[in-house]
Amino acid sequence: MRPSKRQNDELRAISFERGVSKHAEGSCLVKFGDTHVLCTASLEERVPGWMRNSGKGWVTAEYGMLPRSTGDRMRREASSGKQGGRTLEIQRLIGRSLRAVVDLEALGEVQITVDCDVIQADGGTRTAAITGGWVALYDCLRWMETRQMITLSKVLKDHVAAISCGLHEGKAVLDLDYLEDSSAQTDANFVLTGKGGIVEIQGTAEGEPFSEEQFAELLGLARKGVNKLVSLQQMAVA
Amino acid sequence: MRPSKRQNDELRAISFERGVSKHAEGSCLVKFGDTHVLCTASLEERVPGWMRNSGKGWVTAEYGMLPRSTGDRMRREASSGKQGGRTLEIQRLIGRSLRAVVDLEALGEVQITVDCDVIQADGGTRTAAITGGWVALYDCLRWMETRQMITLSKVLKDHVAAISCGLHEGKAVLDLDYLEDSSAQTDANFVLTGKGGIVEIQGTAEGEPFSEEQFAELLGLARKGVNKLVSLQQMAVA
Amino acid sequence: MRPSKRQNDELRAISFERGVSKHAEGSCLVKFGDTHVLCTASLEERVPGWMRNSGKGWVTAEYGMLPRSTGDRMRREASSGKQGGRTLEIQRLIGRSLRAVVDLEALGEVQITVDCDVIQADGGTRTAAITGGWVALYDCLRWMETRQMITLSKVLKDHVAAISCGLHEGKAVLDLDYLEDSSAQTDANFVLTGKGGIVEIQGTAEGEPFSEEQFAELLGLARKGVNKLVSLQQMAVA
Amino acid sequence: MRPSKRQNDELRAISFERGVSKHAEGSCLVKFGDTHVLCTASLEERVPGWMRNSGKGWVTAEYGMLPRSTGDRMRREASSGKQGGRTLEIQRLIGRSLRAVVDLEALGEVQITVDCDVIQADGGTRTAAITGGWVALYDCLRWMETRQMITLSKVLKDHVAAISCGLHEGKAVLDLDYLEDSSAQTDANFVLTGKGGIVEIQGTAEGEPFSEEQFAELLGLARKGVNKLVSLQQMAVA
Amino acid sequence: MRPSKRQNDELRAISFERGVSKHAEGSCLVKFGDTHVLCTASLEERVPGWMRNSGKGWVTAEYGMLPRSTGDRMRREASSGKQGGRTLEIQRLIGRSLRAVVDLEALGEVQITVDCDVIQADGGTRTAAITGGWVALYDCLRWMETRQMITLSKVLKDHVAAISCGLHEGKAVLDLDYLEDSSAQTDANFVLTGKGGIVEIQGTAEGEPFSEEQFAELLGLARKGVNKLVSLQQMAVA
Amino acid sequence: MRPSKRQNDELRAISFERGVSKHAEGSCLVKFGDTHVLCTASLEERVPGWMRNSGKGWVTAEYGMLPRSTGDRMRREASSGKQGGRTLEIQRLIGRSLRAVVDLEALGEVQITVDCDVIQADGGTRTAAITGGWVALYDCLRWMETRQMITLSKVLKDHVAAISCGLHEGKAVLDLDYLEDSSAQTDANFVLTGKGGIVEIQGTAEGEPFSEEQFAELLGLARKGVNKLVSLQQMAVA
Repeated sequence: MRPSKRQNDELRAISFERGVSKHAEGSCLVKFGDTHVLCTASLEERVPGWMRNSGKGWVTAEYGMLPRSTGDRMRREASSGKQGGRTLEIQRLIGRSLRAVVDLEALGEVQITVDCDVIQADGGTRTAAITGGWVALYDCLRWMETRQMITLSKVLKDHVAAISCGLHEGKAVLDLDYLEDSSAQTDANFVLTGKGGIVEIQGTAEGEPFSEEQFAELLGLARKGVNKLVSLQQMAVA
Repeated sequence: MRPSKRQNDELRAISFERGVSKHAEGSCLVKFGDTHVLCTASLEERVPGWMRNSGKGWVTAEYGMLPRSTGDRMRREASSGKQGGRTLEIQRLIGRSLRAVVDLEALGEVQITVDCDVIQADGGTRTAAITGGWVALYDCLRWMETRQMITLSKVLKDHVAAISCGLHEGKAVLDLDYLEDSSAQTDANFVLTGKGGIVEIQGTAEGEPFSEEQFAELLGLARKGVNKLVSLQQMAVA
Repeated sequence: MRPSKRQNDELRAISFERGVSKHAEGSCLVKFGDTHVLCTASLEERVPGWMRNSGKGWVTAEYGMLPRSTGDRMRREASSGKQGGRTLEIQRLIGRSLRAVVDLEALGEVQITVDCDVIQADGGTRTAAITGGWVALYDCLRWMETRQMITLSKVLKDHVAAISCGLHEGKAVLDLDYLEDSSAQTDANFVLTGKGGIVEIQGTAEGEPFSEEQFAELLGLARKGVNKLVSLQQMAVA
Repeated sequence: MRPSKRQNDELRAISFERGVSKHAEGSCLVKFGDTHVLCTASLEERVPGWMRNSGKGWVTAEYGMLPRSTGDRMRREASSGKQGGRTLEIQRLIGRSLRAVVDLEALGEVQITVDCDVIQADGGTRTAAITGGWVALYDCLRWMETRQMITLSKVLKDHVAAISCGLHEGKAVLDLDYLEDSSAQTDANFVLTGKGGIVEIQGTAEGEPFSEEQFAELLGLARKGVNKLVSLQQMAVA
Repeated sequence: MRPSKRQNDELRAISFERGVSKHAEGSCLVKFGDTHVLCTASLEERVPGWMRNSGKGWVTAEYGMLPRSTGDRMRREASSGKQGGRTLEIQRLIGRSLRAVVDLEALGEVQITVDCDVIQADGGTRTAAITGGWVALYDCLRWMETRQMITLSKVLKDHVAAISCGLHEGKAVLDLDYLEDSSAQTDANFVLTGKGGIVEIQGTAEGEPFSEEQFAELLGLARKGVNKLVSLQQMAVA
Repeated sequence: MRPSKRQNDELRAISFERGVSKHAEGSCLVKFGDTHVLCTASLEERVPGWMRNSGKGWVTAEYGMLPRSTGDRMRREASSGKQGGRTLEIQRLIGRSLRAVVDLEALGEVQITVDCDVIQADGGTRTAAITGGWVALYDCLRWMETRQMITLSKVLKDHVAAISCGLHEGKAVLDLDYLEDSSAQTDANFVLTGKGGIVEIQGTAEGEPFSEEQFAELLGLARKGVNKLVSLQQMAVA
């Protein structure tokens, strides 16, 4: 039995609340159970220096955690003077994942920054951030379409969503919360598109190495979970 | 007429939502109109080095803004590598304001950090942070009382709340939103206690210097506003 | 009786020494008793990026303390790798205060930086810096007038000076030195113009909150003190 | 045909040169073709603060690139004042990979830091670093065994090695060099143990998402490559 | 003819003003012509970590320039977030020079920090800092002797002073000011003791390399200059 | 007898290995006994901002030590967030030394950066870096000549090489290794040209001050050593 009493292939309660920011072109408060991430998509005219005059746009992401989003208060990264390795790693992952479904030429020479700020953490913040970040990005692109800056369907090629899986007491389980994550032997994050393509796979053995069969089982669960998440995204933006 | 259509002595819609964080000992999402600040109070066993073995506790505050809490996206302070002068100034003010109503000896040798993170900004973020921060602090102290660590009534001596006032087109007005703030000639922040004592006054002439009479008028308005805020705090924690 | 044996409304010995820097366009060593601040005004052709091509100039200030300007040696900010919150707060205050009496359009598209470096500290460094900074700024503008770059009387609209007041053993006293400041219940800084307008007010209750009446008394003292400082500025630049 | 003219399942020329450092307890210059990484393992008495008095040891890694290890000179991280996200990500991966085959209790309360410095880069620096880092670690542990500090066979549980695979013009290929990496649609890194267990999997679609079948093919190639690398490690330390 | 009209072996007007700081245990405002450096010596109970419980003390130095001590305003190092290479190089030199004449065992386990802050620069700031720093150090040690903490004559073994020499239009000249320094082909700094021993020599060819003969000539001039400086130190502390 | 058993005027085994970097325009692995420094010369089109449109080029150097190049592992400067004073001092010295033999006008408006990374340290890293840096620079200039960008003989005016000397047990000795350096009373570094001109002299008394005669003896040894080094450079690039 999982600590969360969920079935092995059962997601936590998932919700997307759109339009939560008065200022951002697109925004979404995404909840994976007790993990709450505020995603905003901000449109800016300028692109990074190395892209200037390329005719192409850029989608990037930043990630942060509020100091008391966690069980023990963490030091504020702005006060410690730098972003930690975990933060940088996660925001690079979010950026790559979102760019995988965007046609940067069709976007034109603008930059969209998706900020993912963890209001409350209970495991799976990066997967919630990618999944909710897609919704914020969608709304930002719709905002642009309304102003005849782009054609949404040409820029956004597909859905993208992410989920974690892990081996918990030898069983493959879906969408780990903090308690499960802490005791899992293996922790993997999968980023997949709506059409089923794989964008990113990250699997780590916390203790014992894992086998190919176990990994295949995790991937199977992830596919199931992402299909569900994509349906929920579709309902959210419908 | 004010841009916000409010009477000169009229606050924005104020609300306090308590218990918004699963992890923090005390928390409050405070709204002054479209200004939304998430305040969490975190209890820690250790005090700053210079207080060790003094038998006294410490209350401190940190302040931050989400990058897209504002009309234009701001650079994330964690990524720029330091907190700006405005941030440091505001978090020092919040800390001093809360300590003004706390008996640090009665608190005992622990530290409470009140994090005030601006989710959405529309003027008056520091006054909302102080006013909501008090509620988070109250709940943290109640959490401690429940565990027989302190006697709440001995530690927390009074309410404290803050409001901004300004001269807008020559008239003294209460609780400026961003639009009013941008065009005000004078901007002042007042921190007062429930019993009416003054904790902090900060007044700045943006353009023309102001007169003693004008300043007295601002202070009168502030007193009225803080009385209202204190009543709302009382209702919120009742 | 005040620790300094002064009357409650008595300033310390005040002096301005002009032309103390061989290089700076304007300079002044200001002394408020044992508080000595070296102020230099430096003219530069370039303005901050956000002002370029606006036709307007800028006046800004920087503040620093020599490591052994204080009773115990402080860590050098250059070596600790950042300016502290107090430093940033003070230099922002000095800049705002000086800009309050300058017509930035009449100045033309140049920048004047007023550096205020505390050679020896004994309380009231920020008020000495503003008061002496005005003299350095005056001399810099006169330097420019001599070279037919501006008309001094059009650029510099008024005097500006600052003084601290506080409640010491229940009595309102003027121009606190370090010893008085350390034991004051309330500490306030006032920045006023030659014509009597208020530019900045900052009042903080160190212990007990203070009342409106007490604050009015402090303001009364400040007005008296600033009038005296302005006369001394006039004599200095005559 | 691959740009490198190699067979799809062919590694580059691999070599391990041990004992290249006069000072380090263990060291290895590893070459994967033109990718050269200098790995040193340094023994220190002290462990990180959070491990003190746990009786357990720690193995950690740091990664760096010489400024002209790459085609264009990169800015020196020491001079830019921080390690980039890629650097932090890679050194965390190396550390996790090595710890996966170490019994930290059997090691005792010491720390081993494996520094992996890229002397020349031609793709696959992180996989070379893990594979050569294992050899440096082995020699450091042997150094300790000689001094009767540990029993090597109890501390080091298995080999660990890493290899990259990718999809190049639709074909799965092993051990990508820089040129192949730049044009690959998908890039994956696999860290496996001598017994065949999976320690880490990281797969990223650079352009089009990839399929489960393609991923399985990459994993198959990686297994083949790691088996070869482990044999070479065995010969190197024999 | 030198730009300064001085004879080739002629120092600028040198003066030492002692006791210029109300707070520091020793202080000296040293002037080499228009180069003015404020030196303070601060006594602290704690020594650097690596010296603890050695029974020996430490003498160290820090160096800084006020932003407008120079012809063009320099960026404040505290604001740029780090001390430049030149600053670090100079403060290391000052520290080494002063330690060369101090018996650290006789000093006992305390630290003296000599801060050298350039109020006005006109060439030769490092030589003025060393020469005036010795006077501040002397006064600090005398302060300690008065309190029976040390025996001055046992701690301070000798005088130390420094001077620059250079090749200007082919001629060896003593004590270069800024103008001479800018056009010198070779610039050398010499640190010598009262007894004539050499503590530090730093010579740099700015343009053409120099010969052994030229260098000997510079050293001869330096010896003459330092003898004069040591006499002036003796008179200053008499 | 020296710890190294060498004659007082005997260099360690010196070698230059050219072309060790696949990417750099010029490169050299220089060995002074157990001190190994990898020098690469990188050509870039852009010059520093203050040189733009001057028609002149620039030669600069950077210096670093691998963390375990030393007996005890040093902290990585990239991870500590800044380059130490010693690093900055050394890289400034290398840059000045190389520029002393380059005609920057004949070079044209490009920048050459010579990176000197210490792979293994055993004393004298800066002298090895300068001596080997010259070889890397030579090869970079030859690379440019081959592409008809410059005339090598016009740009590179002479050889430059460096050596340390010291007083060890009262005797002047040449080319100190780490052990000798640690126990030397005086340590001096000399940078000389092929024609015998002096470019840089740095002499420091570690304990007792030294005399003029001793210094002359050190300089004599250095001249002998540099002559040998220049012959070896000539053979290396022949």
